Amino acid sequence: MTSPFPSVPGGLYHRPSAFSGEAVRFSVTAFREGHDLIGVHLRLTSPSGIESLHRLTPLRDGFDRWAVEVAPHEEGVWSFRFEAFSDDFATWEHAADLKIAAGVDVPLMREMGALLLTAASRERDRPAAERRSLTATAKALRDSATSDDDALTVVRDPEIAAFFRARPLASLVTAGPAQELLVERERAGVGAWYEFFPRSEGAKRLRDGTVKSGTFRTAMKRLPGVAGMGFDVVYLPPIHPIGTTNRKGRNNTLTAEPGDPGSPYAIGSPEGGHDAIHPDLGTVRDFRAFVRAAHNNGLEVALDFALQASPDHPWVTEHPEWFTTLPDGSIAYAENPPKKYQDIYPLNFDNDPAGIYAECLRVVRYWVAQGVKIFRVDNPHTKPLQFWEWLIATVRADDPDVIFLAEAFTRPAPLQALAQAGFQQSYSYFTWRNTKAELEEFLTWISHDTADFMRPNLFVNTHDILTQYLQYGGRPAYKIRAAIAATAGATYGVYAGYELYENVARPGSEENIDNEKYEFKFRDWEGAEAAGDSLAPYLRRLNEIRRAHPALRQLRNLTVHWSDDGAILVYVKHLPAALSETGVADTIIVVANLDPHSVRQTTVHIDSSVFGIPAGHDYRVEDLITGAEWTWNQSNFVRLDAFFEPVHVLHVKESR
Amino acid sequence: MTSPFPSVPGGLYHRPSAFSGEAVRFSVTAFREGHDLIGVHLRLTSPSGIESLHRLTPLRDGFDRWAVEVAPHEEGVWSFRFEAFSDDFATWEHAADLKIAAGVDVPLMREMGALLLTAASRERDRPAAERRSLTATAKALRDSATSDDDALTVVRDPEIAAFFRARPLASLVTAGPAQELLVERERAGVGAWYEFFPRSEGAKRLRDGTVKSGTFRTAMKRLPGVAGMGFDVVYLPPIHPIGTTNRKGRNNTLTAEPGDPGSPYAIGSPEGGHDAIHPDLGTVRDFRAFVRAAHNNGLEVALDFALQASPDHPWVTEHPEWFTTLPDGSIAYAENPPKKYQDIYPLNFDNDPAGIYAECLRVVRYWVAQGVKIFRVDNPHTKPLQFWEWLIATVRADDPDVIFLAEAFTRPAPLQALAQAGFQQSYSYFTWRNTKAELEEFLTWISHDTADFMRPNLFVNTHDILTQYLQYGGRPAYKIRAAIAATAGATYGVYAGYELYENVARPGSEENIDNEKYEFKFRDWEGAEAAGDSLAPYLRRLNEIRRAHPALRQLRNLTVHWSDDGAILVYVKHLPAALSETGVADTIIVVANLDPHSVRQTTVHIDSSVFGIPAGHDYRVEDLITGAEWTWNQSNFVRLDAFFEPVHVLHVKESR
Repeated sequence: MTSPFPSVPGGLYHRPSAFSGEAVRFSVTAFREGHDLIGVHLRLTSPSGIESLHRLTPLRDGFDRWAVEVAPHEEGVWSFRFEAFSDDFATWEHAADLKIAAGVDVPLMREMGALLLTAASRERDRPAAERRSLTATAKALRDSATSDDDALTVVRDPEIAAFFRARPLASLVTAGPAQELLVERERAGVGAWYEFFPRSEGAKRLRDGTVKSGTFRTAMKRLPGVAGMGFDVVYLPPIHPIGTTNRKGRNNTLTAEPGDPGSPYAIGSPEGGHDAIHPDLGTVRDFRAFVRAAHNNGLEVALDFALQASPDHPWVTEHPEWFTTLPDGSIAYAENPPKKYQDIYPLNFDNDPAGIYAECLRVVRYWVAQGVKIFRVDNPHTKPLQFWEWLIATVRADDPDVIFLAEAFTRPAPLQALAQAGFQQSYSYFTWRNTKAELEEFLTWISHDTADFMRPNLFVNTHDILTQYLQYGGRPAYKIRAAIAATAGATYGVYAGYELYENVARPGSEENIDNEKYEFKFRDWEGAEAAGDSLAPYLRRLNEIRRAHPALRQLRNLTVHWSDDGAILVYVKHLPAALSETGVADTIIVVANLDPHSVRQTTVHIDSSVFGIPAGHDYRVEDLITGAEWTWNQSNFVRLDAFFEPVHVLHVKESR
Repeated sequence: MTSPFPSVPGGLYHRPSAFSGEAVRFSVTAFREGHDLIGVHLRLTSPSGIESLHRLTPLRDGFDRWAVEVAPHEEGVWSFRFEAFSDDFATWEHAADLKIAAGVDVPLMREMGALLLTAASRERDRPAAERRSLTATAKALRDSATSDDDALTVVRDPEIAAFFRARPLASLVTAGPAQELLVERERAGVGAWYEFFPRSEGAKRLRDGTVKSGTFRTAMKRLPGVAGMGFDVVYLPPIHPIGTTNRKGRNNTLTAEPGDPGSPYAIGSPEGGHDAIHPDLGTVRDFRAFVRAAHNNGLEVALDFALQASPDHPWVTEHPEWFTTLPDGSIAYAENPPKKYQDIYPLNFDNDPAGIYAECLRVVRYWVAQGVKIFRVDNPHTKPLQFWEWLIATVRADDPDVIFLAEAFTRPAPLQALAQAGFQQSYSYFTWRNTKAELEEFLTWISHDTADFMRPNLFVNTHDILTQYLQYGGRPAYKIRAAIAATAGATYGVYAGYELYENVARPGSEENIDNEKYEFKFRDWEGAEAAGDSLAPYLRRLNEIRRAHPALRQLRNLTVHWSDDGAILVYVKHLPAALSETGVADTIIVVANLDPHSVRQTTVHIDSSVFGIPAGHDYRVEDLITGAEWTWNQSNFVRLDAFFEPVHVLHVKESR
């Protein structure tokens, strides 16, 4: 046996992971010498010690791969191993079927069969009725009154075959090494996220032109609206005191005007650092009230964890050794030569790693104590990998519910290494994958190539990212990207303002003009929706569909299908009945017109065997967006008008 | 650091291998957090303990891969590990170059540079002249009389850069785990093989119509001819006594006629088994004389090792437990139901593995004692993998020069597992890869994807394989396949008769009619060559070219290039000067017309950067087959007449 999966490539980390209820494909290469048939079992042991045996199916792909899908629920570290065995009944069945039919060695094959069935009839773990049946059949095989034709009927008897499928006659068992699979809570892999800046919610422009910041108490009022759209997580950018030294002004200018609130990423002021709350937002009591209000609305709160300091952070005076002191005695700003970020000091982990580790752990635990179980980590790839490995493991040893999302907008190697080191989620490259070819490759990559160790969180935009596709695609682009994110990803997210189609960029950049990082934003959610100028109803519908369809709350179950048009993307998400908590299979076909400026019509080609409908059979599909129904088969006409509904989200009514 | 290579995938075996002098690519994924620059070293330790350090080059492919090529010579187990380090000089050089030029932080950058150079000047392993130079440069950087422009000149000084390329200022060194690389003797990976049946060489048809078998003494006379064609290895099918029970007749018929010699794979008779010599061939003395004669002709002898027995083999009576006894008391023939091979009993390793292991080891050691160091193993995939792993390791522990070629005509998983378990070579799928697309994929696979653990022996035909391409391709097909095998594979082979274009198959099969396995063959080598009806001169020329060009005696150095014609295959084999024993770079471009029925002309596109010639530069090439010369560049016209010379083997005259 070789190449067992799930697995982690690269050799640095060894434990693959899944979320509770995730359909995981266990597979292995298994073969033996010669022509005798083999079988393969997966032996699974749950964290509480419950063992189960799962029979693998040969893929018959020429590469000796075997696979079975299992959806583990219990959280914790599972153990799994593969066991290959000589399948003595199958070997006899294959030979006897050919030889008895050809009249070759018939008495011998009958006797060999009788011996096998007799051996099986003596196995104590078989039900008594089965044992009796096997004994009788063995006798019949040996009985000269039984004709050879009747003996062949025994060989081909589906009941006997079923006995051995359930309990094979296994000899020469080879067990592979025990391996681990970490199963985390469902929210580690499934959820709809909504990001907003609490200071903007309830902010008021005063008569003198200055702005009174929103607070946790005013921001709380936004929670029912977010929950009403069907989101699961609200993520807040940093809520800590903001430095004033070298504070950035609007649109990332170097000099702040009076009243400019500054970037919340310039963390720290005389009022405190990473464990403090910006006085304008309220107190830690207010924060706790906000967290409670979120929970009451069915929402979890995710906090930003941005390990950097403004020059005014208490760390700077208390622990100058945590930063880089230059030969001229100054502390080094963040920079990307010759660019400088003078409002931010990066941490230097080399001088006092133990001190920084302890302080970071203290900060995380402080917020965990305030009810926060999800952290969105800013730029984790600029801190040591070992630090994250240690921090995440240490935090989760006490509280395995804590989840970390990596903002790892970096190269594939560090991105994947962070996932392997413990991060539950990563934004991935979704925002920059917009064409059909890009998305086909990307969606296959996240759902198959990397799913054993990395979970993408498909944010459609962030406060830092407004892609050209959104800038120039008009309102259809917003629908298209939201529909793909919500259906292709088990976890996805939007940043507030997406529903208002905020699509004007700062010239020459890939981020919003008047970026909320540097100022307050005033938005009229209800007014926009009443005027029909909001995507909120569409997001609400997408989240409803996600809740109703377990196939959409899975990561690994996506297969790309085909269309004849270069802008029509087609994929299927399927959860078989055996793996679904509802006991009912669930299948969604997504057909998306990726060209936001056009009406396209083409033929869509579906391999329905992936959802249990044999090729050539009709099936009914319902568009969950419009309610339209059609009868589909292998090749199907579609017409997608970007200005009406650019995406079909089709429910297959009779999959298996 | 992750994903170190060379490596063995799958998890069953862990030691990659190479042959002495093979150019091996060592590579690893390496990165660190943030923007500081790193370097990577390969630390190699030879079997005798000599350590060397090799600097890796960043591939700048977006995947953080680093690589260096090394050609280890000493045979035995090498140890290698990668070491990544913070490259403090490179980080400063990058920042100082940008910042001093931009007038930012100039005094600081000068001081930081002075500190670095001073630190380097104190390193004891630097040459004294270098240390003096570094001290002086540090002083100049600090000297206010040095202008900023002059300071920038220091930053960009190629001499200083060379100091640090040779001995980087390394901090924060991270060492990867030590790994092993087995280096085997050159013949394990490089050679030209020639297969023939000794009984046919010198066989005589007598007056009464019967045939007198050739002997080792008569077969010996063929050796100068084989050596004269430039081959390195003669491989003999089994030379043991042949059973008479159920002996096969001509063309694999079930009944042998009197005088039919039988298949040499039906091993064993009252005259002996695997350690005996067929009396018709002579005695063990004669065999030893044959081996000596081969050596005197510069040839090694490879013996067949076919672990199966005729019903008349001594093992059958002495060790019936080594076979499968059926419930009716008979011993099981080989079969593939409902087909039976009644002249052969397969071994059953389950009843007495220790006994079979010991006997097989005894047999191999017996032939090693007779001077045989290469074994061609028949059907290894029908015997247990662990057996081969044990046998090969045990034999090689005493005599590391012994080489095993696997006749693993089976699926990729067992084929690769056998290679990983210790076989030095495998026939691979070469005979069935004939189109351009097939060959491009196959040659890339053998030279890159699997070369860390598997070495193909590109036999163009065997006594069992006469492909449709050869059956129907006429004489050009024979040239095309020989030229590709001899140039693409470091090891290749032909079975006797190939040079006579023997291309008639038994109807409906993929093997020769009147297969030599079941009868004597009478061939007139000299007569055919004198009449111009022999490929021998072409094979002779190919082997001469192989001997003259070290690039052709490498496996991993093949890159596929391009042509505009669907039947014109293009590839390059390049060995850089630093890795060549001659100290001179060697580059061969092969352009093959794969359509044996046509004259084709097209444009060939070459990326000359792979052999050190910058894109757009002219270079001279000489066709080593015809002697023609041309000036080539990126795009080149070719005309290949299958009926004249279907393949260009071009030597590049000025590669690096």
